[in-house]
Amino acid sequence: MSKTKITAEPGIPQIVITRDFDAPRDLVFRAYTDPQLLVQWLGPRDISMTIDRYDVRDGGRWRYIHTDPQGNEHSFHGIFHGTPSPEAIVQTFEYEGVPGHVMLDTTTLEEHGGQTLVRTVSSFQSVADRDGMVAAGMERGVVEGNERLDEVLAKLQAS
Amino acid sequence: MSKTKITAEPGIPQIVITRDFDAPRDLVFRAYTDPQLLVQWLGPRDISMTIDRYDVRDGGRWRYIHTDPQGNEHSFHGIFHGTPSPEAIVQTFEYEGVPGHVMLDTTTLEEHGGQTLVRTVSSFQSVADRDGMVAAGMERGVVEGNERLDEVLAKLQAS
Repeated sequence: MSKTKITAEPGIPQIVITRDFDAPRDLVFRAYTDPQLLVQWLGPRDISMTIDRYDVRDGGRWRYIHTDPQGNEHSFHGIFHGTPSPEAIVQTFEYEGVPGHVMLDTTTLEEHGGQTLVRTVSSFQSVADRDGMVAAGMERGVVEGNERLDEVLAKLQAS
Repeated sequence: MSKTKITAEPGIPQIVITRDFDAPRDLVFRAYTDPQLLVQWLGPRDISMTIDRYDVRDGGRWRYIHTDPQGNEHSFHGIFHGTPSPEAIVQTFEYEGVPGHVMLDTTTLEEHGGQTLVRTVSSFQSVADRDGMVAAGMERGVVEGNERLDEVLAKLQAS
């Protein structure tokens, strides 16, 4: 089983996440951009996800709500920059609980021998913002989300 | 005369620009957000600037074209994130000559004793992108632009 690697170097306002998936790149891209697939894997296992909008184009906006087991809602939104493609997806990301704090995410997908390496670089406005995101427990959501994505990709390839 | 300070630390994918202006914060904010004023100061002295759109609101887009003395056109666009206010302006920034490379700019304005300190943190996708922006000669544009902004602010306060 492939493992998610999360790097947050001291003093550098970025997080780098890499993960291999046992699926061709086009399928991984589909799972990242089709709202009906995204809703099945993005985030930790114990949340439910509702997508408000997901407009996959240059300048298109997205917004979704995560509801935790206690019923608390956490909403996120962002805007695609450039046309998302299997090579790269560039988007901003904001948690509505802390307005004014914006991330810029660059996700690249690279196919090698039937597997796809997904690499996301998140650029923050400050190291404090980056550290806040790590402290908020993003790791569990990312790791579990990627395991759920493994399952979605396996199901798509079996069908 | 106040001087523009530009900081680009090795290994950190950011540029920090600070500059004091001899004007109240609301006026500086106006000069940053009113297209009719912006066009009078943004960029080096030898370019002419045309604003295609400038929609100052959360999610609003802007686009402008700089024409250099040789007639070459350089176009830029971006999107405001959050409602721009005299406290802060957050926006993305793309040079259309190198698509796929996006910056995230956070500008804060702070008034102290009749002067306004403007601080802009530009976050890049990579140190290489940051170094590319420095190598492209952004310094002259920023320094001369700020001198032109001094002149615009003086004129506004004299009238």
